[in-house]
Amino acid sequence: MKPLRIAVVGATGIAGQQALVALDAHPWFTVTTLAASARSAGKPYAEAIRAENGARLWWDKTEPSADVLDLVVQDASKMDPGSVDLILSCIEADAARELEPKFARATPTLSSASAFRYETDTPVVVPGVNLAAHFPLIEHQRKARGWKGFVLPQSNCTVVGPVVSLKPLLDRFGVKRVLLTTMQGISGAGRAGGVLGLDMIDNLIPFIPKEEEKVAKEAVKIFGRLGEGSIVPHPMLVGATCTRAAVLDGHTAAVAVELEKPCSPEDAAAAMRAFGADYAGMDLPSAPKRPIIVHDDPFRPQPRLDRDAEGGMATSVGRLRPEPALPNGLKYVCLSHNTAIGASKGLVLTAEYLYRAGLLGA
Amino acid sequence: MKPLRIAVVGATGIAGQQALVALDAHPWFTVTTLAASARSAGKPYAEAIRAENGARLWWDKTEPSADVLDLVVQDASKMDPGSVDLILSCIEADAARELEPKFARATPTLSSASAFRYETDTPVVVPGVNLAAHFPLIEHQRKARGWKGFVLPQSNCTVVGPVVSLKPLLDRFGVKRVLLTTMQGISGAGRAGGVLGLDMIDNLIPFIPKEEEKVAKEAVKIFGRLGEGSIVPHPMLVGATCTRAAVLDGHTAAVAVELEKPCSPEDAAAAMRAFGADYAGMDLPSAPKRPIIVHDDPFRPQPRLDRDAEGGMATSVGRLRPEPALPNGLKYVCLSHNTAIGASKGLVLTAEYLYRAGLLGA
Amino acid sequence: MKPLRIAVVGATGIAGQQALVALDAHPWFTVTTLAASARSAGKPYAEAIRAENGARLWWDKTEPSADVLDLVVQDASKMDPGSVDLILSCIEADAARELEPKFARATPTLSSASAFRYETDTPVVVPGVNLAAHFPLIEHQRKARGWKGFVLPQSNCTVVGPVVSLKPLLDRFGVKRVLLTTMQGISGAGRAGGVLGLDMIDNLIPFIPKEEEKVAKEAVKIFGRLGEGSIVPHPMLVGATCTRAAVLDGHTAAVAVELEKPCSPEDAAAAMRAFGADYAGMDLPSAPKRPIIVHDDPFRPQPRLDRDAEGGMATSVGRLRPEPALPNGLKYVCLSHNTAIGASKGLVLTAEYLYRAGLLGA
Amino acid sequence: MKPLRIAVVGATGIAGQQALVALDAHPWFTVTTLAASARSAGKPYAEAIRAENGARLWWDKTEPSADVLDLVVQDASKMDPGSVDLILSCIEADAARELEPKFARATPTLSSASAFRYETDTPVVVPGVNLAAHFPLIEHQRKARGWKGFVLPQSNCTVVGPVVSLKPLLDRFGVKRVLLTTMQGISGAGRAGGVLGLDMIDNLIPFIPKEEEKVAKEAVKIFGRLGEGSIVPHPMLVGATCTRAAVLDGHTAAVAVELEKPCSPEDAAAAMRAFGADYAGMDLPSAPKRPIIVHDDPFRPQPRLDRDAEGGMATSVGRLRPEPALPNGLKYVCLSHNTAIGASKGLVLTAEYLYRAGLLGA
Repeated sequence: MKPLRIAVVGATGIAGQQALVALDAHPWFTVTTLAASARSAGKPYAEAIRAENGARLWWDKTEPSADVLDLVVQDASKMDPGSVDLILSCIEADAARELEPKFARATPTLSSASAFRYETDTPVVVPGVNLAAHFPLIEHQRKARGWKGFVLPQSNCTVVGPVVSLKPLLDRFGVKRVLLTTMQGISGAGRAGGVLGLDMIDNLIPFIPKEEEKVAKEAVKIFGRLGEGSIVPHPMLVGATCTRAAVLDGHTAAVAVELEKPCSPEDAAAAMRAFGADYAGMDLPSAPKRPIIVHDDPFRPQPRLDRDAEGGMATSVGRLRPEPALPNGLKYVCLSHNTAIGASKGLVLTAEYLYRAGLLGA
Repeated sequence: MKPLRIAVVGATGIAGQQALVALDAHPWFTVTTLAASARSAGKPYAEAIRAENGARLWWDKTEPSADVLDLVVQDASKMDPGSVDLILSCIEADAARELEPKFARATPTLSSASAFRYETDTPVVVPGVNLAAHFPLIEHQRKARGWKGFVLPQSNCTVVGPVVSLKPLLDRFGVKRVLLTTMQGISGAGRAGGVLGLDMIDNLIPFIPKEEEKVAKEAVKIFGRLGEGSIVPHPMLVGATCTRAAVLDGHTAAVAVELEKPCSPEDAAAAMRAFGADYAGMDLPSAPKRPIIVHDDPFRPQPRLDRDAEGGMATSVGRLRPEPALPNGLKYVCLSHNTAIGASKGLVLTAEYLYRAGLLGA
Repeated sequence: MKPLRIAVVGATGIAGQQALVALDAHPWFTVTTLAASARSAGKPYAEAIRAENGARLWWDKTEPSADVLDLVVQDASKMDPGSVDLILSCIEADAARELEPKFARATPTLSSASAFRYETDTPVVVPGVNLAAHFPLIEHQRKARGWKGFVLPQSNCTVVGPVVSLKPLLDRFGVKRVLLTTMQGISGAGRAGGVLGLDMIDNLIPFIPKEEEKVAKEAVKIFGRLGEGSIVPHPMLVGATCTRAAVLDGHTAAVAVELEKPCSPEDAAAAMRAFGADYAGMDLPSAPKRPIIVHDDPFRPQPRLDRDAEGGMATSVGRLRPEPALPNGLKYVCLSHNTAIGASKGLVLTAEYLYRAGLLGA
Repeated sequence: MKPLRIAVVGATGIAGQQALVALDAHPWFTVTTLAASARSAGKPYAEAIRAENGARLWWDKTEPSADVLDLVVQDASKMDPGSVDLILSCIEADAARELEPKFARATPTLSSASAFRYETDTPVVVPGVNLAAHFPLIEHQRKARGWKGFVLPQSNCTVVGPVVSLKPLLDRFGVKRVLLTTMQGISGAGRAGGVLGLDMIDNLIPFIPKEEEKVAKEAVKIFGRLGEGSIVPHPMLVGATCTRAAVLDGHTAAVAVELEKPCSPEDAAAAMRAFGADYAGMDLPSAPKRPIIVHDDPFRPQPRLDRDAEGGMATSVGRLRPEPALPNGLKYVCLSHNTAIGASKGLVLTAEYLYRAGLLGA
């Protein structure tokens, strides 16, 4: 079988780099095109990630492959989307708003940007939770916009852990109300406009612009019902406080839930451990064996110890206990890797799902 | 006026050291006695805080005064409480349970330990919030136990910021429900049994043993009504998640509240800014001018920038906004200094209050 | 006596902010002019340091004074230097190269930038070490350039601790060779182009562009002999490795010295403790009582505990011991505060010296 | 071929845990015995690493294997050394001094402790550098002590990177003098008596007790000549300053060398890249392909990016440049992983060498 040709757009940024790591030696996909801003265009990737002062601007411990280093980076605004079978768009929202419709005219485009998440004809997906359930909306998008391809945005990285861990509770016990506080890793802020060391040593930042709104809006859309040409948001109430902590990778959330039916910590643990992700049984290369790992050790999950579980694709849960301040109250701490399942590796998992399910039209 | 003679017990620990800093050159109090475990007994303080390997085990930037360095440390279990007018007890709960009753037989004892906090005849105080209101219960304690002095425990350091910031909301709008998540500084863990660097770099610890129970139990007692020989807990519901963050000093809390009456963020800010602490107008040396500082900058409070506000005695509040997931919902982030107002400096402020109010019997 | 009118140029940057803190309530100086880039020009300072997202871009725990917050920031390139008696220039080297000559035509200008440090007719000063000895060269600068004022650059922040601590050794024992390795705080990198949190958590950066050359070149110039119209560099050999550590403020250096004459650690400690800075006895408000603090505790100096000693104006030294790998070898660790004595507060101390010595022509 | 039976002594400590990770699924070795202090004895390993408060005291991201979790931990002082073919001793020096001779009477014992390093009849080895050259001394040890086995201590973890990187320089250019400053990761301090978070946030510790002496003494012994019944130390001069930095794993050293013959940075890089470790060509499972990795990027090596290169078994070198303060001077920064090549994984590599070379008598 011929491997699918993939373009990674935003290839020099942290999310793009993670995509390249996730696609390295992939059994089904091969990166044939790299695109970035005009500044990098025309340079081999090895050069595009070298700063003037000689530093290599590459942040993963796995070095980029020799093939990738030799690829000449294209200007994203001039890239021919028809030259590839699938586009992974790892760019900022503003650029995405402009470029992704151009890409989608010709080619399926999976995006980590927020540009399309709140469009009526577009789902916002978390693989495992609502990819299967909401992907059908894409047909509306295609028709309405006259596209050959489509834009399928993934959720904000912060909502992933809460949404994955809530899904089995929602299915078995019903969820009425969720209050959560996040302590987020700094890689989520990207490199450009990144968080300064000066801010993050011996400190916390209690605010991440626009993050709380995204969490609330996306959670109810992800859990929503597929209606006619749109998603009907789930009626649960969601309130979030999002903070930045001195952690490199991994978003931790303290979650308090009001359930419709009583649910003991043991019930919750059992439901989470039994969680059947929507990609279960498809044997996807990037899928975690255990989408949710439940810890008994009360000192877990910890970002450094647990973010890389199952290659960064699992959500780790711990401290399941009653929440006395809510009726049918339950609380716990969850953790997921913001640049793995929460970003580029999540896109790759989605790509694998669509490919296996025959939804990429290839 | 003759200064009050003070004994600091647990003088070599981090809380004891903070007490010494708070008492340095105090206008009303003078440290005449230092006590610690048998290991330190008989040594001048300068020697007691010197480790075998030559390190000085002193963690404040302000050096101890020459007078204090010369004081010979006594064995806390053999100290004569009658030799001082007031005892500041900065020891662990187990030692406190044994020693504080001995101290109290002769002398008023203010304690940062949890040993007496949950006794029926004993209030748990936060200066500014319930010191005036609950101190009268001490008469019951004295009589019931036949003590000349008393034991007055201060609250757990974590509950201070939430309780100070909630007090004006409670008074004006009524509080039905509180859900909070804390991100606590590591100095709260003390030196002995302290948090390892290995755990705190690029990491968070999602659990602090027994902390959440203390927060819940103490909050409702602090807000409780003084009854006959006991405090009747306030009926509000309180749920907490307590985590440890890579911050030296300062406990941050994300607080979500359900109020009895509607309260806009502006109303809340106004109430907090107008908060009249119970020590207001007494001109106490350690009292903050503004017990609550409300920030408009959404990136505040930050531990490093705000913990030392008003000498570490203020509670800083920011991010006041509606909590959509609760009826009459309000949420905010608060910060207070765990080893200043939250521990030894809080004891000193309490001592000043009692002294000024003529309640030390001197 | 009328206070001197001071302009702080680069007032919104981290060094400029430190200058404002150092000049707050100064007995001799008053800030009458703030200047910065065109972007900030025309705004009151309170606004100029407020980011679009509402954050206050101010990094000191001491808040700016109300007077300063109200001052309208001028465009540095259009500022009238004649409107003030003294200019503190806290700007980047490129801007300094262009603007400082304009300032100096009219007004004495003390600079933290490197632009003039390597000019033949210009000394590079460290107050306490060579300010008195090298200031006379300024007359040549004035004449040669036809300026009414002058540009007096302070050294790079990194060289301060080593140079201050070496000075008494040089005077008494002679210095032939110095090898040093620095571990520098991240505030030295400034805010613009600052060090990312992503780089500084669980990490070290072994390179700071151009820093090692500055250290070597400036050290021998600072210790040089005042010749005819220039400084003759000291013949000692200097080699440096400069690294960035996860420390906010404070530059630590491990220094190994080959002396001309034998010098025991005790001799060295005595010489350092007896060091008579060139401002000694002048009663300058910003001068430290002890320019060098020598620690016996082998675990000192530590950045967090010692950088603020004497208001950030002292150099702390510890671990004095023989260096077996060098003839007459001695080694030690020194620490000085890069944004206090090493930058703006150093400029203020220099200003005080010049003012007191009658060298500001006022 | 039957796998060698291995005992890991000190199995619950951080070095012992690393040994278990290094031996997991090893092709030649199988862990049949775990030993630790009496406190852990009699418990299955899974229990021995569970604290009273429920925390799992295991610090590697790779979980221990099911087989290991089931092994019942023995009391190290009562362990029968004859029941295994090889002992990896990962215990503290005091315990090692007592126990290792008992082990060695029956069984070859490789040790990460310092107890035997300075014995006349005992080499101190760094695999790749002097394992082949100095192992013959073990025959003297065996005879002199009447042991069937032997004790072979590995060097201190700090000396590894400098010694590996110096070896090719020594061989080709000769080394007269070395001055180095280390910035060491905190995992080197172990868990018991570990470094506190309180000390390591926004800070450096400029002293590690006894470390500098070890570095100096071991370096000249490692580079020494095998004489009659002892190692004749190399005459090079070595001076070290050892500091602790806020880095989890990885010891960085800034090294300045005076060579016998001129050596350009390019020469040095070529020599390092061509370094033939003494295990080269033996196809050992834990051997790095490149014992020394030389970086051109001046911002490398960095602990977080480079410590895990080649599974933590490579020494990374960067910033090769002349050292102007020394004749034939060269300087660079090197990095090696203190708990991989620097401790347990180094022991495993040594074991592999001895096994393959037929020196384990099996």
